[in-house]
Amino acid sequence: MDSSVHNDIIHKIRQHQSIRKFTSEIVPEEHIRQIVASAQMASTSSNMQAFSIIGVTDKEKKRVLAELAGNQAYIEECSHFLVFCADTHRLKHSAEQEGVDITPALEHVEMFLVSTIDAALAAQNAALASEALGLGIVYIGGIRSRIAEVSEVLNLPDHVYPVFGMCIGYPDQSPGVKPRLPLEAVYFENEYQPFEQVKDKVAAYDQTMSQYYEARTAGKRTDTWSEMMSRSLKDPKRTHLKDFLAERGFLLK
Amino acid sequence: MDSSVHNDIIHKIRQHQSIRKFTSEIVPEEHIRQIVASAQMASTSSNMQAFSIIGVTDKEKKRVLAELAGNQAYIEECSHFLVFCADTHRLKHSAEQEGVDITPALEHVEMFLVSTIDAALAAQNAALASEALGLGIVYIGGIRSRIAEVSEVLNLPDHVYPVFGMCIGYPDQSPGVKPRLPLEAVYFENEYQPFEQVKDKVAAYDQTMSQYYEARTAGKRTDTWSEMMSRSLKDPKRTHLKDFLAERGFLLK
Repeated sequence: MDSSVHNDIIHKIRQHQSIRKFTSEIVPEEHIRQIVASAQMASTSSNMQAFSIIGVTDKEKKRVLAELAGNQAYIEECSHFLVFCADTHRLKHSAEQEGVDITPALEHVEMFLVSTIDAALAAQNAALASEALGLGIVYIGGIRSRIAEVSEVLNLPDHVYPVFGMCIGYPDQSPGVKPRLPLEAVYFENEYQPFEQVKDKVAAYDQTMSQYYEARTAGKRTDTWSEMMSRSLKDPKRTHLKDFLAERGFLLK
Repeated sequence: MDSSVHNDIIHKIRQHQSIRKFTSEIVPEEHIRQIVASAQMASTSSNMQAFSIIGVTDKEKKRVLAELAGNQAYIEECSHFLVFCADTHRLKHSAEQEGVDITPALEHVEMFLVSTIDAALAAQNAALASEALGLGIVYIGGIRSRIAEVSEVLNLPDHVYPVFGMCIGYPDQSPGVKPRLPLEAVYFENEYQPFEQVKDKVAAYDQTMSQYYEARTAGKRTDTWSEMMSRSLKDPKRTHLKDFLAERGFLLK
């Protein structure tokens, strides 16, 4: 890796750190609009724009969502909690007005993918736009743990599901950039390289992460990446998702 | 929407246009490494980094992929065709070395989501980094149309699937920024607003898009957005995905 970065945007991208402690300052409305407008400019499959964003500022809703996401206090403390939703409700009703029932298309994996990816691409633009404005962000996958209740709080109809949340606010910490896997373990030329070919790179990263945690926890924690991953994925997670999604019209046919 | 944008990064984000015509110039290796390093700095669920990128430069492979994606010549013509893959193979084998079998976790919707979202967030960082370097990009969902053959060309093992591709290269066109839905149709405060509440915004966008296409096609095409969406989703698309994914270990349980 050439470590010299002469480009401001790339520099900013590579300085990303997740922020979990915010000041009480509120993000001005004009910034939120620029963040959302940035999200909207991400690529979208066939211009479907199959996502919506709920900006939660209501104190009581934020408190409930913080609890539903597994007691993540920063959801309550941040200025705006954005919930990125995969949304095919708008498409369905637009088509209905043209006299076309697109429900069968919505029940297949393809549209689940399109709407989920649209939401994710929009979110990453929102993340970068926020950071460009001096704000900090953290993604919250935890809202999927109690997805039915989260959907109820946000009044989501069928054909809309909350993919993840994102806390936005003024940073009150600087935890530092977390090391990533060596580039050679995730980027391959012309064909995939199976684990056998990258295991030395993963082993090197195991050591990097172990040292990283050791330094950050004053020696209390020295897990390698592989240890953390094995522990985290020992048991299936969020096994209620399939039934919930089916109920909401994403049948994953 | 406040149209004044005083921020370079947001300005760049909001100038995005998909590029489908490239010069023959090759993107230097150092740029590719900066683009991939940028992709890696996107947020990733619990640091799983459940994605890989294949950079296709081999002429014959690009030709075949262009055909498999539905004869999209720009895949052949661009400098690098990046394929973003959801990848739980690396996690599975890392855990295996720790003596833990995480296969059951990988068979659930949650890990399908995590890996797909990780790939998408990484891709959007790659897109912006590319644009920051003066390159143009276009996402290619078309590789999902013949996903089994695409996977074979790239030698993808089980627990890896190609989510989408991205052409990268030096732009040889400037098609202009495509209008998006009014902000008020996709962003809601504190709770979702169903179609009834946004249909006027969608109707306004229908007119915007109709005029946009009319201007770009010298009057040959005047479809509204709703008309295009209804036509595009009249029939289910890529109905083979569920079976393919199951075969590769993404059982969507």
